[in-house]
Amino acid sequence: MTAYDDLMVFQRETEALGQVMGRLGWDQETVMPPGAAEQRADEMAALEGVLHARRTDPRLGEWLAAAEAPDEVAGANLRHIRRSYERNARVPGRLAAALARETSRAQGIWAEARKAEDVAAFLPTLREVVSLKREEGQAVAQGGDPYDALLHDYEPGTSSAELSAMFGALRPRLVALRDAIREAPKGPKLDGLFDEEKQLALSRECALAFGYDLARGRIDRAVHPFSSGSGSDVRITTRTNPEDPFNCLYSTIHEVGHATYEQGIDPIHALTPLGQGASMGVHESQSRIYENQLGRSQAFCHWLFGRMRDLFGDFGIADEETFYRAANRVHEGFIRTEADEVQYNLHVLLRFDLEQALMRGDLMAEDLEAAWNDRFLADFGYAVDRPSNGMLQDVHWSAGLFGYFPTYTLGNVYAGCLHRALREAVPGLDARLARGDAGAAVDWLRERLQRHGGLREPRETVVHAIGGEPSEEPLLGYLEAKFGALYGL
Amino acid sequence: MTAYDDLMVFQRETEALGQVMGRLGWDQETVMPPGAAEQRADEMAALEGVLHARRTDPRLGEWLAAAEAPDEVAGANLRHIRRSYERNARVPGRLAAALARETSRAQGIWAEARKAEDVAAFLPTLREVVSLKREEGQAVAQGGDPYDALLHDYEPGTSSAELSAMFGALRPRLVALRDAIREAPKGPKLDGLFDEEKQLALSRECALAFGYDLARGRIDRAVHPFSSGSGSDVRITTRTNPEDPFNCLYSTIHEVGHATYEQGIDPIHALTPLGQGASMGVHESQSRIYENQLGRSQAFCHWLFGRMRDLFGDFGIADEETFYRAANRVHEGFIRTEADEVQYNLHVLLRFDLEQALMRGDLMAEDLEAAWNDRFLADFGYAVDRPSNGMLQDVHWSAGLFGYFPTYTLGNVYAGCLHRALREAVPGLDARLARGDAGAAVDWLRERLQRHGGLREPRETVVHAIGGEPSEEPLLGYLEAKFGALYGL
Repeated sequence: MTAYDDLMVFQRETEALGQVMGRLGWDQETVMPPGAAEQRADEMAALEGVLHARRTDPRLGEWLAAAEAPDEVAGANLRHIRRSYERNARVPGRLAAALARETSRAQGIWAEARKAEDVAAFLPTLREVVSLKREEGQAVAQGGDPYDALLHDYEPGTSSAELSAMFGALRPRLVALRDAIREAPKGPKLDGLFDEEKQLALSRECALAFGYDLARGRIDRAVHPFSSGSGSDVRITTRTNPEDPFNCLYSTIHEVGHATYEQGIDPIHALTPLGQGASMGVHESQSRIYENQLGRSQAFCHWLFGRMRDLFGDFGIADEETFYRAANRVHEGFIRTEADEVQYNLHVLLRFDLEQALMRGDLMAEDLEAAWNDRFLADFGYAVDRPSNGMLQDVHWSAGLFGYFPTYTLGNVYAGCLHRALREAVPGLDARLARGDAGAAVDWLRERLQRHGGLREPRETVVHAIGGEPSEEPLLGYLEAKFGALYGL
Repeated sequence: MTAYDDLMVFQRETEALGQVMGRLGWDQETVMPPGAAEQRADEMAALEGVLHARRTDPRLGEWLAAAEAPDEVAGANLRHIRRSYERNARVPGRLAAALARETSRAQGIWAEARKAEDVAAFLPTLREVVSLKREEGQAVAQGGDPYDALLHDYEPGTSSAELSAMFGALRPRLVALRDAIREAPKGPKLDGLFDEEKQLALSRECALAFGYDLARGRIDRAVHPFSSGSGSDVRITTRTNPEDPFNCLYSTIHEVGHATYEQGIDPIHALTPLGQGASMGVHESQSRIYENQLGRSQAFCHWLFGRMRDLFGDFGIADEETFYRAANRVHEGFIRTEADEVQYNLHVLLRFDLEQALMRGDLMAEDLEAAWNDRFLADFGYAVDRPSNGMLQDVHWSAGLFGYFPTYTLGNVYAGCLHRALREAVPGLDARLARGDAGAAVDWLRERLQRHGGLREPRETVVHAIGGEPSEEPLLGYLEAKFGALYGL
C-alpha cells in the first residue's frame, strides 16, 4: 500500500459518511416524523463531528506529504483532498465551532424575523455571522482576499474580480432588456386549477425525458425542491401548486439537471472527491440548461402543450405558440427563486455586490436593508414592499453561505456557453425536443461534461466541454434573441 | 467534568450514530432506489467502522475505570457500557472482521440456497459461520459457556440452563394441546379478497388504538414488517396480502408493540444505553402481548369484526364469535413467522435446541437437516416437505444470530406473566377492548415496564412490572384455557 492508497481508503470512507449525511438531510425534508426534529439534530451533529474529525485528521497531512500521483485521476484526487485539508486546517477549532453554533441558531432567528417582517430582530445575529465569516475568510485567505477565500468553498479557481468583470457586462444589457419588456404588452397566463397528482405524473414524464434514472433515484414531495446524493442514490424532490403547474414541472426539470449530472459521472469516480459535480457553478449550469435553454425552448414547449391539454383539458391557452409565451412570461416579482430568465440574474448580482461589501466591511448590517432596496429599485424598476420580499427572503446569509450566490449566475453564464456549443454539435435538436425527447442534449452534456465529475477545475470543466473560453456573451445573445422575439422588441 | 460526564458525552454521540445506522436500515427496506444497494453497503460499512471504533475506543476503558455512579441511572448506564466494552474488547479485531465479512456473504448464499431448495449449497458457509461464532462465544465466555456468551448479546443475565428448564416445561404441554386440537373440528376461515388500501387504513386505526404516536413515527410498506429506531423517531413497516387481512393487521399490532415500547421510554434516557428496550425478550413480550393476549382477545376481535364488516362487507363469517375463532385458527404449517399461538413456541424450541447443539459441537452442519426434520415430525405431527419449509426458512443462522431464537419464546413467557398481572390490575379491560380501545392496557404496560427502558436487567424489568417471579405457567394456563374453549377440548 502506497501513501496514496492509504489516503484513498480513508477518503472513500469519509465520502461514504458524507453520503450518509445527505440521506439524513433528505429524510428530514421528506419523511421524518415531525416530532423527531430535536433528536435528528443530535444525530446530525454526531455525524458532523465524525466528518469534521476525519477532514482535519493529522494523518491526512502525512499521507498528502508522502503521496505521489501515478496518473491524472490520482492527481485530481490529491488536489481536492489537499485543498479541503489545508482549508480546514487554517480554521481554528474554536472558530469552526462558533460558526456551526451561530449559523444553526441564526436560521431559526431569520425564519422568525422573516415571518414577522422584522429586520431589526435579525440584525444582531446577522452582524455576528458576518463577523465570524469575515474571520474565517481571513484565516483561510492568509493575506489574500477573504471574500475570494469563501467563494472558493463553492467555486474553486474563480476570483471575485473575474466574476465582477463578467457580471458588470451582464447587468446593463439585462436591465435594458427588462426595461424594453416592461414597455411591451404583457405575456399570456395559464388559467385554471391543475390536478396535483396529474402534475406529479407529468413531471415524472419530464424527468424521464431528461434522462433521470429512477433505478438510482426517486422523486418525492417536499416544501422546497432539491437534489440530494451522488453516485447510485440521487434523489430529487418537487412540490405542487394547483394554480401553477409550471412550478412543479420546471422545478422538477431543474432538479433533474442536478441529479442527472451526479448520475452521469463515471462510476470509477464513485465515493471519491471526483464523484461529485465540479462546483456549484457547473452544477447550476446543468440545472439551468435543462430548465431554461431546453425545457423552456419553443420546441419543448410545443410538446408540453400537447401533453398538458391531454391531461388537463382547456386552461385558457389557445395554441402551442401562446403556451410557449406563457412558459416564458416576464413578470414583476420580488423573489429570486420565482424569477424569469431575464430578471433572475439581476437578483443574484444584487446579492453578490452586497455580500462582498458586507464581507469587506464596506457595508454595515444596519445599512443592508436600505442598500438592498435602493439597488432593487434601480435594477428592477419597482420598489420592495416588505422585508420578506427584500433582504429577508433568502436563507443563505443566515446559514453563513457567503460566496454562494454568484455561482447561480456563473451557472447561467456557463449554461449559455454550453447551449451554444450544444446547438452547433447537435443540429437536429429541436425536432427531438418537439417530440418531448431531450435525450440527444443530455447525451451530449453527459459525454462532454457530466461524466468527468470533479476531474478538472470548474472553469476547465466548461472549457473542455465547449472547446473554448467561457464568456457572458452567449447567455446575453440567447436572452436578447429569445425575449426580443417573444416580446416583439 | 467527571469521568462519568466525559463518558456519557462520548456515549450519547455513539448512541446518536447508532440511530443513524437504524435510519439507513429503514431507508434500505422502504424507499431506497433498487440500484443503490452496492453503494449503500459501502455507506453502512463506513458507519459500522466508526461505530466499532467508538465501541472499542481505549478511552472507554479509562473512563470506566475512573467513573463513579452518583445514582441508579448512572449505575445502570455504567453497567451497560461496561458490559458492551468488555465484550467487544474480548473479540480480536481479526475475528470481528471475519464475522462481518462471512455473515454478510452468507446471507446472499442462504437466500439463493433457499430459493433453489439446495441445502448442500448452504452447508459450507453455515459451517464457516458456526465455526466463527463458536470462536467468538469462546472468546467472550473466557472459560464459561460459549452459547451463553452469545445469548447474552440479546438477553443479558439469562442462561441456557434456565431457559432449558423453562422450555422443558412448555414443550410437552404445547405438544399435548396441539395434539388435542388436531383431533377437533377445524376452525373457520375468512373468504374473499380484501382491498389492500383498506387493510392499511384499518391497520393504521389499530396502531392508534394501541397507542402508537405518529408524530414520532410512521408506517410504511416493506417486504418484512419491522420496527426501527428509538426515542422520538420510531418507525414501523407492514405488508398486505389481498387474501389474508390478518397478516397486515396483526403484524402491524405486533410492530406497534415494539414501537410503543421504544416511544414509551422516559425521555430522560434518550440517546443513552437506557433509552432502548431492556432486551430482545422483553421487547418481544410487548409485541406479543399486543398482538395476541390483547389483539387476538375475544373482546378486541368482536370490535374488529364490526370494523371489518364496515370496510369489507361480507367475507363469509356470520358473527363476531366465529370471527374470533377465525383470528385464532390453529392450522398446519411449516413457517415460524406464520404460526398460530399454540405452535409458535414449538418452532422456537426446535431452533433453540439445534443451535445449542451446533454451538457446542454436538451436531454437525451436515446432520442439521435430518435433525430438524425428525424433531419437526415429532413435535408437529407432520413432515417437512422441502428445505425452504425447514432448516432454510429463517435468516438468523446465516446472519450469525445464534442465541437470538430463544428470546422469542422467553418474550411469550414474559407476555403471559404480564397479561396475568395486567388482568388483575385492570379489571374492566375487556369492556374497553370491545370498543377497540387498548389504551388502559398500554398505559399499564407503559407505567409498569416500558418507561424504564434499560434501567434494570431484563428479568428484573419483568419482576418489577409483575411484582413477582416470572414463570411459564401463566402462558400455558392462558393458552390451555383459551384454545380449550375455542376448540371445545
